[in-house]
Amino acid sequence: MKGVKYEYIEEDLTNKSPLLLKYNPVHKKIPVLLHNGKPISESLVIIEYIDETWKHNPILPQHSYDRARARFWAKYIDEKAVPPLRDFVWSKGMDREEAIGEINELLKTIENELGDKKFFGGEDIGLVDIVANVVGIWLVVIQDLLGLELLTEEKFPKLCNWIHEYVNHTAIKENIPPRDKLIEFYSAHLGAASQ
Amino acid sequence: MKGVKYEYIEEDLTNKSPLLLKYNPVHKKIPVLLHNGKPISESLVIIEYIDETWKHNPILPQHSYDRARARFWAKYIDEKAVPPLRDFVWSKGMDREEAIGEINELLKTIENELGDKKFFGGEDIGLVDIVANVVGIWLVVIQDLLGLELLTEEKFPKLCNWIHEYVNHTAIKENIPPRDKLIEFYSAHLGAASQ
Repeated sequence: MKGVKYEYIEEDLTNKSPLLLKYNPVHKKIPVLLHNGKPISESLVIIEYIDETWKHNPILPQHSYDRARARFWAKYIDEKAVPPLRDFVWSKGMDREEAIGEINELLKTIENELGDKKFFGGEDIGLVDIVANVVGIWLVVIQDLLGLELLTEEKFPKLCNWIHEYVNHTAIKENIPPRDKLIEFYSAHLGAASQ
Repeated sequence: MKGVKYEYIEEDLTNKSPLLLKYNPVHKKIPVLLHNGKPISESLVIIEYIDETWKHNPILPQHSYDRARARFWAKYIDEKAVPPLRDFVWSKGMDREEAIGEINELLKTIENELGDKKFFGGEDIGLVDIVANVVGIWLVVIQDLLGLELLTEEKFPKLCNWIHEYVNHTAIKENIPPRDKLIEFYSAHLGAASQ
């Protein structure tokens, strides 16, 4: 979206690099953005930093009330979607029913918030769309692998339409990992988790 | 800090008002800020909205890297301090040892981040100081009531000095609830929780 050149470094989270431990000593988690030798951690903090540093093609809305709404929904999706999805993939012997219930509630709430808009951000993608990546890409792959029927056309037509628009958006299409790589990655983890 | 007039409405969280359910239907939690008839929820989102709407006496730093750092630490304190403190007061039969361990780790990390600065924000209070309110006011009252020795002069001299500066800052001094009211409120809840 910003057209900024960057170097992408993958981390093996089962064997964290000295670089990760140096630049995110508090959480020891990805992602970390390194800019001018200075580290920034936490996904939402990184997105706001990028938007403030490179101002063209804004990610957050212009008006303060719209910005607050976008931050509210970004925080909601981040806090509500990531933990149950992580449980699906990495937890052994977890309560899968509980995770399914939480995801269902999340999907209902954001289907309602999306309404008849093309994107959460309106006519173009914005903060909430980028965060909802976790629903549009992660969740879809995980439910296919596990044979779940969570996010379907019948139950969530608006979200399904949003996913179609989102994954075909130029800025996203060229940057998402190929589906077969995601399937390979998650099926290895899901296999290990179910042992 | 902003000198803005406001009306303060208390909520009984055991009997939530129609107003709260109307304006924060997703989380049904306080705080909610109502401005020009529009609701804003989530503490950190509200603070950023206030800072963007009334620009004098800024709460967030001016430069984008400093803003990212402030957001990082505000998020850390909010996520790390609030759940164990809530457990102390509202949970029955919780694992108190675990909550104490988490608070200790938090205190070590933020004592280190504070360093020799007067405030987390530098010479004046800012976003991180306002969020660390939960440590400087809540935690102090709760540890006194429970007879814990978590945040002491010996263990955390810099944080203790920060608390002194913070509670005596004009903008804070005039707006924090009186200590005897806090003690009364928490001791009623702690009594109920230990039954």
